[in-house]
Amino acid sequence: MAIRYELIHTCKQSGARYGLLHTPHGTFETPIFMPVGTLATVKTLTPEEIKEVSDGLILGNTYHLWLQPGEDIVAAHGGIRGFMHWDGALLTDSGGFQVFSLTDMRKIKEEGVYFKHHKSGESLFLSPEKAIEIQEKLGADIIMSFDECPPSDATYAYTKDSLERTLRWAKRGKDALKSDQALFGIVQGGLFEDLRTYSAEKLIEMDFPGYSIGGLSVGESKKDMYRILDHLNPVLPKDKPRYLMGVGSPDDIVEGVIRGVDMFDCVLPTRNARHGTALTTQGKIQIKNKQFEMDFSPLDPGLITPISKYTKSYVRHLFKAEEILGMRIMTYQNLAFLKHLMKEIRQAILEDRLLDYKKEFFKQYGYTK
Amino acid sequence: MAIRYELIHTCKQSGARYGLLHTPHGTFETPIFMPVGTLATVKTLTPEEIKEVSDGLILGNTYHLWLQPGEDIVAAHGGIRGFMHWDGALLTDSGGFQVFSLTDMRKIKEEGVYFKHHKSGESLFLSPEKAIEIQEKLGADIIMSFDECPPSDATYAYTKDSLERTLRWAKRGKDALKSDQALFGIVQGGLFEDLRTYSAEKLIEMDFPGYSIGGLSVGESKKDMYRILDHLNPVLPKDKPRYLMGVGSPDDIVEGVIRGVDMFDCVLPTRNARHGTALTTQGKIQIKNKQFEMDFSPLDPGLITPISKYTKSYVRHLFKAEEILGMRIMTYQNLAFLKHLMKEIRQAILEDRLLDYKKEFFKQYGYTK
Repeated sequence: MAIRYELIHTCKQSGARYGLLHTPHGTFETPIFMPVGTLATVKTLTPEEIKEVSDGLILGNTYHLWLQPGEDIVAAHGGIRGFMHWDGALLTDSGGFQVFSLTDMRKIKEEGVYFKHHKSGESLFLSPEKAIEIQEKLGADIIMSFDECPPSDATYAYTKDSLERTLRWAKRGKDALKSDQALFGIVQGGLFEDLRTYSAEKLIEMDFPGYSIGGLSVGESKKDMYRILDHLNPVLPKDKPRYLMGVGSPDDIVEGVIRGVDMFDCVLPTRNARHGTALTTQGKIQIKNKQFEMDFSPLDPGLITPISKYTKSYVRHLFKAEEILGMRIMTYQNLAFLKHLMKEIRQAILEDRLLDYKKEFFKQYGYTK
Repeated sequence: MAIRYELIHTCKQSGARYGLLHTPHGTFETPIFMPVGTLATVKTLTPEEIKEVSDGLILGNTYHLWLQPGEDIVAAHGGIRGFMHWDGALLTDSGGFQVFSLTDMRKIKEEGVYFKHHKSGESLFLSPEKAIEIQEKLGADIIMSFDECPPSDATYAYTKDSLERTLRWAKRGKDALKSDQALFGIVQGGLFEDLRTYSAEKLIEMDFPGYSIGGLSVGESKKDMYRILDHLNPVLPKDKPRYLMGVGSPDDIVEGVIRGVDMFDCVLPTRNARHGTALTTQGKIQIKNKQFEMDFSPLDPGLITPISKYTKSYVRHLFKAEEILGMRIMTYQNLAFLKHLMKEIRQAILEDRLLDYKKEFFKQYGYTK
C-alpha cells in the first residue's frame, strides 16, 4: 500500500479526527490543507517557500499538465516532483472536474468524455483509463478516479445515472492502475443523501486506500454542504483518509473537520491573494483599500513570518503599482495563515476542545454566525 | 562626506579602474552594476534575493516614487530602505530622465519643468530644488542633480543651451541640499566632445562627490557612445566615482569599464528577464524557443546558483504558461549573471588583463566583433 492512514485521536467534544497520513514522501498530520500547484507551480512561490507555508503535501492538476506542457515532458523529469523540484508529497486530481466545467464543449459517453480544448478548440478525449495513465506519468503519491461532477442543481434522475457511470468509471480506473500510487475513490451523489450513501458503499466495496468527497462547494448552500458531510461521516470507513475536494475557506475547513474530513485543497487562498485579499488571524482584509495607505503594521500582526517585516502600507503600494512582489507576499501570507489554522485545529482536536476553538476562531476572524 | 571613492588599482593593460566606494551602508568594490528597483522593489524579487544577486547597491527612481505612493509615505518608513526593507546601499536618480521622456507633455522653463502625469494627466512641476527635496525624503546614499537629457540627435545649439541650464540647475540643487547625502553632478553635452569637456569642467569646479555621465545609451551608436566615454575619461577626476547612467548590456559594461567607468545601472537585464531573455555565460537565450522544450540542462550551466536546479524545459513551461515563478527565476539569473560578470571584470583589472578578458568573454558570449 502506497499510503496508510492512522487514526490517532478522536476529539471528545466534536468527533473530529486527528491522524497520520503515511506516504512515500513523508508522514503528515491530519487534518491537512494542501496548497494547489496547478501547472507544477504554486503560483508565485518557489518550492522552498512552499515548504515553509505548507505541511509538505501539495496538489497538481492533471487536466492542465496534460495539455501544458504535456505529461511526457513532466514524466521525463521524473514526474511533477522532479519537474518543479518539489521534494514533498503530492496529490493529483483526475481532470474530471475541469472537463465537466466545460459544459458547452463536451459530450459524455460511457467510454469517456469528448471535449474541446478550452483555448485552442482542439478535439480531446479523456477516459478513466487515460486519466490513470496521465496520473501515472505525473507520478503523484495520491491520485484520483475519473468522475463526473454534476451541477448542484442536477435532478435526482440525472445525478443517479451520472453516479452509476462514475462508479463504473471508478472500477475501470482501478483495473487500469499499474503503479503503486494510492488511487482514491470519489463519492458523488449531489445533495441526495441516499445517493451519497450508495456511492460511498459501492466505492468501499471496491476498497480504495482513501475516499474523496466530490461535488460539494460547487454552488450549493453551506447548510447543504454541511448536511451531506454530516450524512457521510458515519458511512465512510474510519481507517481511511477522507478528502473534501476544492474546499478551503476557513469556516468550511473547521466545519469539515468537525464532520470527519482529513484533507482539504482550494485554489482561493492563493487566487484571492493575487487579487489583494489577505487571510489573517484577525479576518480578511483587502490590501488595496485606502485605509492601509499609512498603516505601518504587518499584514497579520497575529502571525509572525518572514513577510511580517513588510508594512501594510508597502504591500498596498506594491498592489497599487501592480508589482509581482505584492502577489508573492500575499500568497505567502494566505498559505502561512492556513498552515497556522490547521495546526491550531489539530491541537484543539488533541485537546478535545475543537468546538470551543471554533467559537473563539469564528469570533476573532469575524464570522458572524 | 557621505561617500568616498578609493582608487586601488589601474589595469596596466586597459587603464580600467578598480576601486572601493565607501558609503554609509557598506563599502563596495567597483566597477559595480546596480540593479534597478524603480518603485522600491527590484521587480519580482525580495530584498533577501536582491542581496544574493547584487553587490549590495541598488537604484530607485525618484519620478516613479514621487507619483506613487508619494515621497511622504516612503519617508514615513524612514526612506526607500525602510519602505522596501533593504539594508544595503541605495542610489536615486533625479526624475529628470523620466520627465524629459514625456516629450509631448512637458514645457521646459528656467525655473523647472511643467508636465502632465503620464497616466492621470494631472499638472505637475519638477525643479532642481524639488528633485533634491524628494530625494532627501527617499533617503538614498547617493542622489542625482536634476538635469535635462536632450535627445541624441539634438543640434549643437540646443544641446549647448540645454547644458548651460542644466549647469545652473546643478548649482541650484547643490545649494538646496540640506542632508549629507552624496549629490552627483551629471555630465551632459550630447555627442559633442567640446560640450562634454565644458560640462565636466564646470561640474568639477562645483566639486561634487561623484560624476554621472548622462545622455548616453539614448539612441546613439555604440561607436559614438564609446567615443564620448574615451573623450571624458581623462577629463573626469581620478579620485571620484564615475557613473554611466542607464547602461547595462554586457558589451557596453566591459567597454565602459575600459573607458574608466565605475558604476552602471540598467533596467534591461530585469525587463528582458520578464520577457524570456536570459543572459548566460554562454550568451543570450530566449527561453520560450521550441528548442528548449526537452532541454534538461540548467538556464546557465556555467553559473551555479540556487536557480540552477530548474531545467530549461521547466522554465520554458513556466513562461509558456505565463507563470510568475518563471519571471522570478529569469530575473534572478540575469542579475546573478551581471554580478558574476562584474566580479570577473574586477579580477581581470586587478590582474592587468582586462583586454584579454574582454576578448575571451566576447567570444564565449557570442559577440561577433
